[in-house]
Amino acid sequence: MRIALAQLNYKIGAFTENVEKMVSAIREAKQHHADLVVFSELSVCGYPPLDLLENKSFIDRGTAAVGDITKETDGIAVIIGLPTLNTQKTGKNLFNSALFIADGEIRCECHKSLLPTYDIFDEYRYFQPADKVAPVQYKGKKIAITICEDLWFQQPLLTNFGKHKIYTSDPMKMLGAESCDLIINIAASPFAYNHEAIKTEILRANAGKYKTPIVYVNQVGAHTELIFDGGSRVLDADGRNVLRLKSFIEELAYFDTDKPVVSHQNSEPSDTDRIHRIHDALILGIHDYFRKMRFSKAVLGLSGGIDSAVTLVLAKEALGRENVRVLLMPSQYSSDHSVSDAIKLAENLGVRYDTLPIKDIFNQFLDDLGELFRGTHPDIAEENIQARIRGTLLMAISNKFGNLLLNTSNKSEVAVGYGTLYGDMNGGISVLGDVYKTDVYKLARYINRENEVIPEHTLVKPPSAELRPDQKDSDSLPDYDLLDQVLYQYIERRMSGDEIIAAGFEEGMVWKTLSMVNSNEYKRFQTPPILRVSSKAFGFGRRMPLVAKYF
Amino acid sequence: MRIALAQLNYKIGAFTENVEKMVSAIREAKQHHADLVVFSELSVCGYPPLDLLENKSFIDRGTAAVGDITKETDGIAVIIGLPTLNTQKTGKNLFNSALFIADGEIRCECHKSLLPTYDIFDEYRYFQPADKVAPVQYKGKKIAITICEDLWFQQPLLTNFGKHKIYTSDPMKMLGAESCDLIINIAASPFAYNHEAIKTEILRANAGKYKTPIVYVNQVGAHTELIFDGGSRVLDADGRNVLRLKSFIEELAYFDTDKPVVSHQNSEPSDTDRIHRIHDALILGIHDYFRKMRFSKAVLGLSGGIDSAVTLVLAKEALGRENVRVLLMPSQYSSDHSVSDAIKLAENLGVRYDTLPIKDIFNQFLDDLGELFRGTHPDIAEENIQARIRGTLLMAISNKFGNLLLNTSNKSEVAVGYGTLYGDMNGGISVLGDVYKTDVYKLARYINRENEVIPEHTLVKPPSAELRPDQKDSDSLPDYDLLDQVLYQYIERRMSGDEIIAAGFEEGMVWKTLSMVNSNEYKRFQTPPILRVSSKAFGFGRRMPLVAKYF
Repeated sequence: MRIALAQLNYKIGAFTENVEKMVSAIREAKQHHADLVVFSELSVCGYPPLDLLENKSFIDRGTAAVGDITKETDGIAVIIGLPTLNTQKTGKNLFNSALFIADGEIRCECHKSLLPTYDIFDEYRYFQPADKVAPVQYKGKKIAITICEDLWFQQPLLTNFGKHKIYTSDPMKMLGAESCDLIINIAASPFAYNHEAIKTEILRANAGKYKTPIVYVNQVGAHTELIFDGGSRVLDADGRNVLRLKSFIEELAYFDTDKPVVSHQNSEPSDTDRIHRIHDALILGIHDYFRKMRFSKAVLGLSGGIDSAVTLVLAKEALGRENVRVLLMPSQYSSDHSVSDAIKLAENLGVRYDTLPIKDIFNQFLDDLGELFRGTHPDIAEENIQARIRGTLLMAISNKFGNLLLNTSNKSEVAVGYGTLYGDMNGGISVLGDVYKTDVYKLARYINRENEVIPEHTLVKPPSAELRPDQKDSDSLPDYDLLDQVLYQYIERRMSGDEIIAAGFEEGMVWKTLSMVNSNEYKRFQTPPILRVSSKAFGFGRRMPLVAKYF
Repeated sequence: MRIALAQLNYKIGAFTENVEKMVSAIREAKQHHADLVVFSELSVCGYPPLDLLENKSFIDRGTAAVGDITKETDGIAVIIGLPTLNTQKTGKNLFNSALFIADGEIRCECHKSLLPTYDIFDEYRYFQPADKVAPVQYKGKKIAITICEDLWFQQPLLTNFGKHKIYTSDPMKMLGAESCDLIINIAASPFAYNHEAIKTEILRANAGKYKTPIVYVNQVGAHTELIFDGGSRVLDADGRNVLRLKSFIEELAYFDTDKPVVSHQNSEPSDTDRIHRIHDALILGIHDYFRKMRFSKAVLGLSGGIDSAVTLVLAKEALGRENVRVLLMPSQYSSDHSVSDAIKLAENLGVRYDTLPIKDIFNQFLDDLGELFRGTHPDIAEENIQARIRGTLLMAISNKFGNLLLNTSNKSEVAVGYGTLYGDMNGGISVLGDVYKTDVYKLARYINRENEVIPEHTLVKPPSAELRPDQKDSDSLPDYDLLDQVLYQYIERRMSGDEIIAAGFEEGMVWKTLSMVNSNEYKRFQTPPILRVSSKAFGFGRRMPLVAKYF
């Protein structure tokens, strides 16, 4: 049997476009004499549709799309993903389903059993778990059709509190997966640099445990925060990769179940690829956000610092240099090198830059506020006014010329609240909000791997917000090397302060850091969507009460 | 048996404070010769704790708190709510539990069976449903202990798509509720003006169906967006209210199971109370947000319009007039009456006001942007600069003097995106973001019911953003009377455009409205938390993809 793995980039709710894309793939697969085309989870509507699933018209559109696809299945079979109605009297309204369609007929509706409801996943909000599962017979083969999490009955923990088995029954066992010829897994599994090894191990472990090959087809493309990397693959019954599709791009690839595999491709990304993969993920994230929101042009503020420099390079890669422009907005506290480093970068990239000093506007604000502020000393209020003037100028360009504003805050800053709400926290999408400062430097080194794109001086000078004379980040924050480690333990690994201290970090620094994280939940509530590249990004997948006592 | 209903206001994660409050109630109940004190759902930690439940230390604190409460139970029983560990090998990490403690001993751990996972509820994210349930024996009575949603096996629909039975098994049936002497329901059920009748009916229906009295104890107090109204009550076996605690305040009330009820109190809120109840809910929402975030002072921009007027009155009620100040920030486009109406209101309330015209700052922005804007015509870019100058001035007062900024946008505006991100959409909390414009007018009338607090002129003049000469809301938006009806059908009831048109609304207006709602999801992503008073507020309970095709 020849199987086509269709790793495609869908748009949520764009049924017509999605179906057209799927139909093209089916036609191409027919020309390649494929017997079966496998599409990814919820391919018909795109993943995650979120509360659009609560609209009857959304479900109806999905049902209608099935008809359009079924018409194309003369002489071929397909597996597609979509939400279907649960017609039982009790239970949630919908199933997350895979339809097996062959020769113009729906042969089987398979429903997802394990519904991830943690981090960014909310599937139990919408779906009823499958009440029964059974393999499908096709061309003499017995196939277990599973949907993403269905392989994750047992999963490793990234945090230090939780369970390896968060579901009470295992669909693979119920499917009798060990007596099947093939396991097919259609997925919508988002990229996270520190989750890749786990995903690989889950696939390997399932193939090995059931001594059955696995065909894994994952969605590719970004949907607001979530970046799906694709990386679809075929594993043999020993859990070895025999085919692996590329990451971050669409691909239609073929696999013959009956042909002996000549070489075992082992193209797992290695640890040294981490920064490379984050780099590529972010470019896809920017590109798809713009394309799918129907924007083409971006603007950002270029400060001469490392964050805006890396953001600009990524934006230029994603959108083209002619579609990106920057503003330099020096104040009386800006150093000369801020301006010269920024100009040098813009010129290296061939990106339009304009310089708008903020001094006159800032002085006008201070004049107008003079009476109300009488008797007070300059403090965070004056610092924030500068950041908000810059935010307003950038939004003026955005509103006037239609350039979407890119936010340049990094994860370390966002974590400790080192940023100004309605100022430098503005933006349509945050590019680096899930990248710790130390990794931003590594991204810059990666960008400069062949030649100096980002001026070396930007990489070596001490980071500063330049909102008061001689300000440095290190005046207010621990060194980023230490800070980022503590943040990782607290945010990604959910360790408590006591546990982090026990791991060898200085007590005062740990509590100060945790307290900054906790007291800035209110700021993060209002941040733009953050491109997610880790297992725990700020935003949708991390739901903290604002009004709470933390410890 | 004498039962004390403890309707208390907790703070999430503040275990020490919460336990102190509970211990005081137990001691007082002892003096009143109570046999049993009933606290609300997750009372030990406050509801909803959200992802704090993923911290081991959070769960440990809860366990420790049980010890402190148990010590107080000499000669009395209590029912408390807290998260407990699921020690089974499989399933979610935690249970949402009610502990029955008597005479220094935990007699029973009852777990919640029905875990709401819709709208603002995410319980299946954290909790495993109970695997078994059984009544508790105490003082010769057989008591069914249930937790909030456990009574909601069958529920009415507010939307036009969904099911009445979203769970597959009914804990009340398994408890044999009809053979119990008493059903106790501990709850954390948030206020929504259009959900009140449903809640009342659910309680009535359960009492009637099982011919068993119900003691219902709900949490009171606001937690960021969510406002819990209390309204704890006792129903007899015929479903009639025999006791009802007040709404929106703490109360400890007593009920004797063995005393014949003399009069059936019927204090259900009537429909005419709707605006009154929204009014009281919002005041509690503001009050608790400030108190629990340790803020005492507020600032807001007073425009002379209805939204900021109503917000100011509510803030003054919640915080006291000495803790509220306002800025008047007229521009060249402001009418004289904007300023005079605003001053009159501030004076009526005795609230400090300062006037800061924005003209000079605005002109400085235009000068500085002059070259970049050359050849363009004034448009939304210039309008938004004005709103952002105001936002920056308000935040300057906030940062300098510690006054939390109140957002004054109403739900109609937020729905259609009629507001400026980083401008008038700024704020620590949105007071009216879940109140449609037509209801804002009703709130104003309610406020003025005895004397003219808000100047009559503010209520009768046509609404305007005053960002360009002679601008009126009606230039860009349908009349609010019609707009609000369409929005209600689309947002609260999830009707499609076709269905709304079929209900009698003009086609062009409907599609224009829906398109405005859909294309402004990105703005709402960055709004402040919105005090929730309806069954579908923007924010946490309404999760729409930004990148999507809507229809």
